[in-house]
Amino acid sequence: MRIVALAGGVGGAKLAHGLALVLAPEQLTVVVNTGDDFQHYGLRICPDLDTVCYTLAGLANPLTGWGRENETWLAFENAQKLGGPDWFKLGDMDLGTHLERTRRLSAGEILSGITRDFCKAWGVGATILPMTDQPVCTMVATADSGELPFQEYFVRQQCKPVVKGFRFAGIESAQPAPGVLQAIQSAEAIVICPSNPWVSIDPILSVPGLRPALAEKTVVAVSPIIGGKAVKGPVVKMYTELGFSPSALSVANHYQPHLNGFILDQIDAHLVSELTIPSLTTDTLMSSLTKRTALAEDVLHWIRRLKTL
Amino acid sequence: MRIVALAGGVGGAKLAHGLALVLAPEQLTVVVNTGDDFQHYGLRICPDLDTVCYTLAGLANPLTGWGRENETWLAFENAQKLGGPDWFKLGDMDLGTHLERTRRLSAGEILSGITRDFCKAWGVGATILPMTDQPVCTMVATADSGELPFQEYFVRQQCKPVVKGFRFAGIESAQPAPGVLQAIQSAEAIVICPSNPWVSIDPILSVPGLRPALAEKTVVAVSPIIGGKAVKGPVVKMYTELGFSPSALSVANHYQPHLNGFILDQIDAHLVSELTIPSLTTDTLMSSLTKRTALAEDVLHWIRRLKTL
Repeated sequence: MRIVALAGGVGGAKLAHGLALVLAPEQLTVVVNTGDDFQHYGLRICPDLDTVCYTLAGLANPLTGWGRENETWLAFENAQKLGGPDWFKLGDMDLGTHLERTRRLSAGEILSGITRDFCKAWGVGATILPMTDQPVCTMVATADSGELPFQEYFVRQQCKPVVKGFRFAGIESAQPAPGVLQAIQSAEAIVICPSNPWVSIDPILSVPGLRPALAEKTVVAVSPIIGGKAVKGPVVKMYTELGFSPSALSVANHYQPHLNGFILDQIDAHLVSELTIPSLTTDTLMSSLTKRTALAEDVLHWIRRLKTL
Repeated sequence: MRIVALAGGVGGAKLAHGLALVLAPEQLTVVVNTGDDFQHYGLRICPDLDTVCYTLAGLANPLTGWGRENETWLAFENAQKLGGPDWFKLGDMDLGTHLERTRRLSAGEILSGITRDFCKAWGVGATILPMTDQPVCTMVATADSGELPFQEYFVRQQCKPVVKGFRFAGIESAQPAPGVLQAIQSAEAIVICPSNPWVSIDPILSVPGLRPALAEKTVVAVSPIIGGKAVKGPVVKMYTELGFSPSALSVANHYQPHLNGFILDQIDAHLVSELTIPSLTTDTLMSSLTKRTALAEDVLHWIRRLKTL
């Protein structure tokens, strides 16, 4: 069974990793949000893409979910001693990625090709694709701080500003990265990982051509909201500030009309009666490697059943 | 006594350091070659400037003369694992410098202002100035490899190509960095450090306005060639390939008509009779911190005598 997973950062990376552990490499393509990419210290940083790659490569820091395991911070600390900005941490090993990516982008190469080569070097078997090779910047409209580039909102201001809406700058001229539409077309199902719908998945869905491609496919989503709470990040805060109830139900509604099935945590089982599409309730909190694999198996098993209904 | 030292990399940095140890901070300005600057991995690297700054800050690696002491190489090693170029080593602590400099240059700041702030953060009392804030690139004409940017010749090809000449690309539109001409004008003497005349000192002297400013001053030079050999680097190879005898005499001739006095090693005392300007023979091999200080004291003492002749 061929699967395309749509993923943002840490939560998405965990399920993508689970899928990679139970599928053969050629069965899995992960399409990753690049709306949170930015330039920092002269380098191109792709936080979600790196989190997914590091996680699937077994290189990620298990405590934070992002960055590299056994990381050191000498470059960053020395830049700070010189007055450099301290709000976005850059580890030494992680910098190796940013340096080589920036070098190759400066030489005119495209992000998807660079990512393919990096994954090969890191021993990642599954295909990891940025959603697009064109620059897209998620802009967060806030109540009091105007419009902020995503990392300014997310890291620098620690998601404190009240959110009014989102815009994906550059999305009109973006094209799906080479391989994205083909992977979707040949997939048996699309899995929307438990990432933030507003700022991780919506940018991917907004790339011109993505939504039409999904219209013909079996699409399931895993809720990033469990019992009204986010495992990580500002997803509950965003739904609330935008006037929605912060629940798995809002996530299911968010992805309409694409959704053919919805996966929510067992503690949200009472919400199932309010869903108008088939659903699976299971343990969705991926607090260990075993649970990542278990959730991936649950999702795949259920997709098979869904397709035979 | 106010001194302006002209310096390139390791040899120049050592004498500049000696001068910094015996002069008060306000008495010393070091004007540093930037013709060897280049872009690498998307970052602006200033090898000579950093060597001088690190050396005067006591941060330099005493074994290599360049780079930082107790350096680690995780970023560089990880970039290499991804296929990044390995010919120019970038240490983690050193990267902190390149990152913050690149960030500030990208924000429109000038190199001399950035260097001033870096020196303040590193506790360097003397004034260190890049020769210019405009980009200049030393190009090496070679017999078989065409024209090479300096670092390609110097590091990547390890000075192997036969040299035919040099060109300082961009020098016509370069201006002395703010403070350079003022420092020269108010100096009692100019000390040309034992750096490579062709690729470390000539770029400085070629900045428009520099040679006229030196014409009115007491200028002394310290030979980087001792007993026909270079302490470090390709200076002897360059003189030979360009058809000159590789000796301290050729260095003295190189700096004519600017020179008022010449300092050469005691083992070259037999050459003194061939010099047409006053000279000092002393121990010029700065193989220890004590000897850096001793040479600086010798040079300053002799300049005082020279000026009273």
